[in-house]
Amino acid sequence: MRPYVIVNVAVSADGKLSTRERRQVKISGNVDFDRVDEIKAGCDGIMVGIGTVLADDPSLTVKSPERIAERVKQGRPEHPVRIVVDSQARTPPDAKILHKGSGKRIIVIAESAPSERITALAPHAELIKTGMSQVDLKDLMHKLAETGIKKLMVEGGGTLIWGMISAGLVDELIMFVGNIIIGGEDAPTLADGLGFIHESDFPVLELTSVSPMEKGVLIHWKVK
Amino acid sequence: MRPYVIVNVAVSADGKLSTRERRQVKISGNVDFDRVDEIKAGCDGIMVGIGTVLADDPSLTVKSPERIAERVKQGRPEHPVRIVVDSQARTPPDAKILHKGSGKRIIVIAESAPSERITALAPHAELIKTGMSQVDLKDLMHKLAETGIKKLMVEGGGTLIWGMISAGLVDELIMFVGNIIIGGEDAPTLADGLGFIHESDFPVLELTSVSPMEKGVLIHWKVK
Repeated sequence: MRPYVIVNVAVSADGKLSTRERRQVKISGNVDFDRVDEIKAGCDGIMVGIGTVLADDPSLTVKSPERIAERVKQGRPEHPVRIVVDSQARTPPDAKILHKGSGKRIIVIAESAPSERITALAPHAELIKTGMSQVDLKDLMHKLAETGIKKLMVEGGGTLIWGMISAGLVDELIMFVGNIIIGGEDAPTLADGLGFIHESDFPVLELTSVSPMEKGVLIHWKVK
Repeated sequence: MRPYVIVNVAVSADGKLSTRERRQVKISGNVDFDRVDEIKAGCDGIMVGIGTVLADDPSLTVKSPERIAERVKQGRPEHPVRIVVDSQARTPPDAKILHKGSGKRIIVIAESAPSERITALAPHAELIKTGMSQVDLKDLMHKLAETGIKKLMVEGGGTLIWGMISAGLVDELIMFVGNIIIGGEDAPTLADGLGFIHESDFPVLELTSVSPMEKGVLIHWKVK
């Protein structure tokens, strides 16, 4: 048992999430932000990797007051549970994700996470420990499902998405391809990590829709 | 004065040209091959980087007998001039690009290319020397235009495309986005090299068309 997992990203035309310095750049516009907010509002959890927290310091809250009100009306919390995959507990205790907006936060750590950092984070989030030096994503999905997370959105970065894809834990991939070139062999892409070598290992996608949006292209894939 | 430059590539859904081992993988199918052959037949030159020659050993000939016949009828050579950007003259003297099909080949080297390798390549190709340790792409475009190349197709790899894009030498970018995930932070993307840091440096594209093709998506951009 695991949640239904949607990966949502905005990439440049050359497939980058940001610059080689990992500084957040504007790839999409307001129409895309609203589209992402809508998906987020429909999810029980939203998950990012520690690299994204350190680089962008996102709050990952639902932005639209109407969508928040609608969630509350349905008896759901204002925001999805916010989850950071952070094997070594490096989330800064003052990170926005821990303070902005109401609701539950989960920081997912590995056995090897330093205890003083765990102590610093404990007042601000629930901690889930799984895996020895790296978070065991399969086990994490199982644990999240047990806490009632049925639909999970993953926003990045490239290392976490690679981990989820390579473990066979992704159901949908939604990409906005923006009208810029960032370039750089060291710039992050939507699936980094080690990468596959053999064709037989490549996850195969099914195109469900593609359309122009703002100045770029929105592509929906299902993972087969 | 420089040729009109079309970059044409097939990338995985996560923006990779091949695996981290740089082994060529099948990203597109026959419809895409035929589309690329059509563009190639309409060009005066087709250019790749030395990395692509070493990894894939392509011949870069026009494949369709009808298109070859049509070129000949128009008084043009059977195949576009085949050009390798190869600063250190590393093209193997038995590379397919030097032997398969009729017509002119150009190997573009830098001043620092070792003379024994130049000697080995001289019987098989015209040599153009430009730049000290790296090929000067702007000067090369000027020289190619002088030899009558009005329309040039660039097929890769990521380092050459980055060089062309960052020097402002690209007019069109045609991408086929295939329905696979390759992954890998070290896998080549369509624009590698150093990459841009500042938003103001990002080349801005204009979407000219997007449509589903085979199991993926074909995207046409114009570089503004």
